[in-house]
Amino acid sequence: MAADAPPDGSPRYDTVSFLSDYGHGDEFVGVVHSVIHQLAPGATVIDITHGIEPYDIRAAGLTLARSVQYLAPGVIMAVVDPGVGTHRRPIAVEVGSGRAVFIGPDNGLLAPAVGLLGGATRAVWLNDAEHQLAAPGPLFDGRDVFAPAAAHLCNGVPLTDLGEEVDTATLFPGILPISRVEDGALVAEVLWVDRYGNVQLNVDPDELDALAAEAPADRPTGSSERSGGGHFEVLLDGSRRTARRVVAFEDIAPGAVGLVVDSYGLISLAARQASAAEDLGIGTGDGVTLRPIVDSDDTSDDAGDGSAAESVTAVRVTFGRRPTPSDPASTDVPGGAG
Amino acid sequence: MAADAPPDGSPRYDTVSFLSDYGHGDEFVGVVHSVIHQLAPGATVIDITHGIEPYDIRAAGLTLARSVQYLAPGVIMAVVDPGVGTHRRPIAVEVGSGRAVFIGPDNGLLAPAVGLLGGATRAVWLNDAEHQLAAPGPLFDGRDVFAPAAAHLCNGVPLTDLGEEVDTATLFPGILPISRVEDGALVAEVLWVDRYGNVQLNVDPDELDALAAEAPADRPTGSSERSGGGHFEVLLDGSRRTARRVVAFEDIAPGAVGLVVDSYGLISLAARQASAAEDLGIGTGDGVTLRPIVDSDDTSDDAGDGSAAESVTAVRVTFGRRPTPSDPASTDVPGGAG
Amino acid sequence: MAADAPPDGSPRYDTVSFLSDYGHGDEFVGVVHSVIHQLAPGATVIDITHGIEPYDIRAAGLTLARSVQYLAPGVIMAVVDPGVGTHRRPIAVEVGSGRAVFIGPDNGLLAPAVGLLGGATRAVWLNDAEHQLAAPGPLFDGRDVFAPAAAHLCNGVPLTDLGEEVDTATLFPGILPISRVEDGALVAEVLWVDRYGNVQLNVDPDELDALAAEAPADRPTGSSERSGGGHFEVLLDGSRRTARRVVAFEDIAPGAVGLVVDSYGLISLAARQASAAEDLGIGTGDGVTLRPIVDSDDTSDDAGDGSAAESVTAVRVTFGRRPTPSDPASTDVPGGAG
Repeated sequence: MAADAPPDGSPRYDTVSFLSDYGHGDEFVGVVHSVIHQLAPGATVIDITHGIEPYDIRAAGLTLARSVQYLAPGVIMAVVDPGVGTHRRPIAVEVGSGRAVFIGPDNGLLAPAVGLLGGATRAVWLNDAEHQLAAPGPLFDGRDVFAPAAAHLCNGVPLTDLGEEVDTATLFPGILPISRVEDGALVAEVLWVDRYGNVQLNVDPDELDALAAEAPADRPTGSSERSGGGHFEVLLDGSRRTARRVVAFEDIAPGAVGLVVDSYGLISLAARQASAAEDLGIGTGDGVTLRPIVDSDDTSDDAGDGSAAESVTAVRVTFGRRPTPSDPASTDVPGGAG
Repeated sequence: MAADAPPDGSPRYDTVSFLSDYGHGDEFVGVVHSVIHQLAPGATVIDITHGIEPYDIRAAGLTLARSVQYLAPGVIMAVVDPGVGTHRRPIAVEVGSGRAVFIGPDNGLLAPAVGLLGGATRAVWLNDAEHQLAAPGPLFDGRDVFAPAAAHLCNGVPLTDLGEEVDTATLFPGILPISRVEDGALVAEVLWVDRYGNVQLNVDPDELDALAAEAPADRPTGSSERSGGGHFEVLLDGSRRTARRVVAFEDIAPGAVGLVVDSYGLISLAARQASAAEDLGIGTGDGVTLRPIVDSDDTSDDAGDGSAAESVTAVRVTFGRRPTPSDPASTDVPGGAG
Repeated sequence: MAADAPPDGSPRYDTVSFLSDYGHGDEFVGVVHSVIHQLAPGATVIDITHGIEPYDIRAAGLTLARSVQYLAPGVIMAVVDPGVGTHRRPIAVEVGSGRAVFIGPDNGLLAPAVGLLGGATRAVWLNDAEHQLAAPGPLFDGRDVFAPAAAHLCNGVPLTDLGEEVDTATLFPGILPISRVEDGALVAEVLWVDRYGNVQLNVDPDELDALAAEAPADRPTGSSERSGGGHFEVLLDGSRRTARRVVAFEDIAPGAVGLVVDSYGLISLAARQASAAEDLGIGTGDGVTLRPIVDSDDTSDDAGDGSAAESVTAVRVTFGRRPTPSDPASTDVPGGAG
């Protein structure tokens, strides 16, 4: 939420949320905080995480997307930047007509989160040297370009003072893997393994429900148990497990894995006070296929519907504004960043 | 210290001290900060540590107990929560009639620190959905339950608005290992190995003094050196060392280990600019027996007094209010959190 | 910048920049924050880094030196303290006649940064117990001595109230390795390997320019390419590579290493989206010799000038005030900390 709009109508932000792959072993994070604090003493800087693996744009983009609806309104600065010191552009991307401004390299990192907040309304290439620190070398844009831009925005400097406005359609898109239905099974991918070993898949609960509903509806099952709604085969590269759909962790038997709706609303494989990732031997980016277990000895004629033919495995997330039926103010921007 | 009590007499807090096993690799810590900042913009959040090993309730409870007397007054939020997503209760525990409120899962984690501050004066089960975030899944109570509760308390919301009041006697107790005297030796346990390899034992300096004082007092020693006050056998699982009681690190000879009063007032095994834990090959939870060295060739008839018969090895730390001779205001609450 | 000087003329600081080897696994950092927050509630504490390897004074001194020109004015607290619990002195060192005060152990850690800011103008031994916390044991001066001193300075307590003034000439000096020219080559050392594997050398761009300029100027080269300005042999312990001087990362060929001016103005060996340190097999403190490549089959009579005779490999950085031609206010103190 923009507070204290200065006379020219530019929003003024008071919070900078900050994500990077800087780690905590060097002084990078501290120096960025110091620069922002000196240029905008009243701003609050909140560290989302700096534990992204070096250069892992995909992981950073997913982390930002998971976090974004919970972030404080204002500036969101994300720096995972293998192209620092090259010609990739440093950018600022406005969403919700000024509700938030993302700052970072134009390498796809920001795209998923920007998309979740309704798409970009404006963007600038951060190329105005007057709003940057003079740098001896080109390798620390977090300090020299991004932190000053964040601070200036908090001070009410208009977005377009920070550089040349660019067409949002020219921004580097993000790539998100999406799942597909194939022969009655859901072919998915591991998005994230958290500290506790929970394995987040690119699967909505609705997809799993639909899959399970279709499986037994097509044929009579050979037993009294109409399963399929609750049990799934989990097919991994070279191994196979079963998992039950559960609501609470305590419904997972010791030694078993379950399928839960996780804290971000996606399906995760989880174990009971143990690491499902370790148990299953899988990690980020690995493929996982989920197939409803139908209690029948004939599973050869699995239902195939239109969605089985779907073969898209990734979607480009662009910065274009999503068409909305009503005015921008009513766009479904998650509350936190609205 | 409660500042700016709102009209209804509820204390208002301005600081949230925050400990967890979230680590810094994921966005968990940042999201919790973001939620608190949005709900209570004026509150200061201080991270105690998020480096607790996943699910290690014991280590978290000890860390909180070590820290608590130095924490800012207000809300103390601690989340190590293997039971998240099960029926364990999220709770808020008031101490000192409102001097501080602990927030976390009801799994024993809070008990040692609450006990150190004089015991619970009230407790509520955080089950009022109106004071929580709507959560897609049940796995992130830090974000959805604990952070909102902390923020609401900072905003002056009365404790009992956050949920159903519960009898403090029903709260899950903590278990702390205590040392015992056996055949003139102190049978102790490693509570903590810090980053530098210092090995904290569950031993008060007074216990060590008493042990040393008793040993030589019972019999004449065979030499002019009345030792025992200063040297100890350190008996580990399968090995044996000696250690001298010292005041400063520089009194420890290179390659030796010493017994020092550490910065929390307990006895630690320490080496000089080296890791005592590595040198001794021990870690948290390991047993360590300390026996005064009497300069005599007859050590078979070690003094045994009443305390040698003591066989309690753990004590339940309950949330009940400790009986105090005077009014609560005079309870011996360590200064920092008072 | 000192703000709101109290009536007695002491500067009042509002920011504490904090560096240590405490890590994030224990509660040390959080407890220090808590102590400062309680004693000086209005102060902002900015963590530079706590990821220094335990007891690595040299790395801490270099980290502080890299950071210092970007730090907020005020108190700069740095604690890497293998001598805690011995007789090494805890000190506060004023620079720029009060523009900043460094706080930490007197073990050389502060010296490089103090030197960069123009040298010490005053120093005190932090031995006034009234301005410290009562400590059960001597092992946590960060909490008991340094944090209270930082907070008191933020509250406007005069420096000399914190302890006995000491002659800055008696302070422990820091040692910085400096490079030397030997037979036309630059004998240097690795100062730092950052998270991305960039290898910072103790080499200024000017030194490299001078080296390259001298090499080909002495003789005609055997080819049309007058190189030497751009290519260097990189001689390591037991191996040999070549590296080109480049401006941007994208000018480094995949698989090659380049020599760039890094974000602190020194020469770093870097690879393209890869770890140069790993590629070269080198780490902090290792020796690296750089020799200009002259495109000639006769390289035996490399130019040797006066500088080749230079054999100093380390310089003592003392706390003495550097002679300045004009008044202290015009001293070339980098802007950030001025």
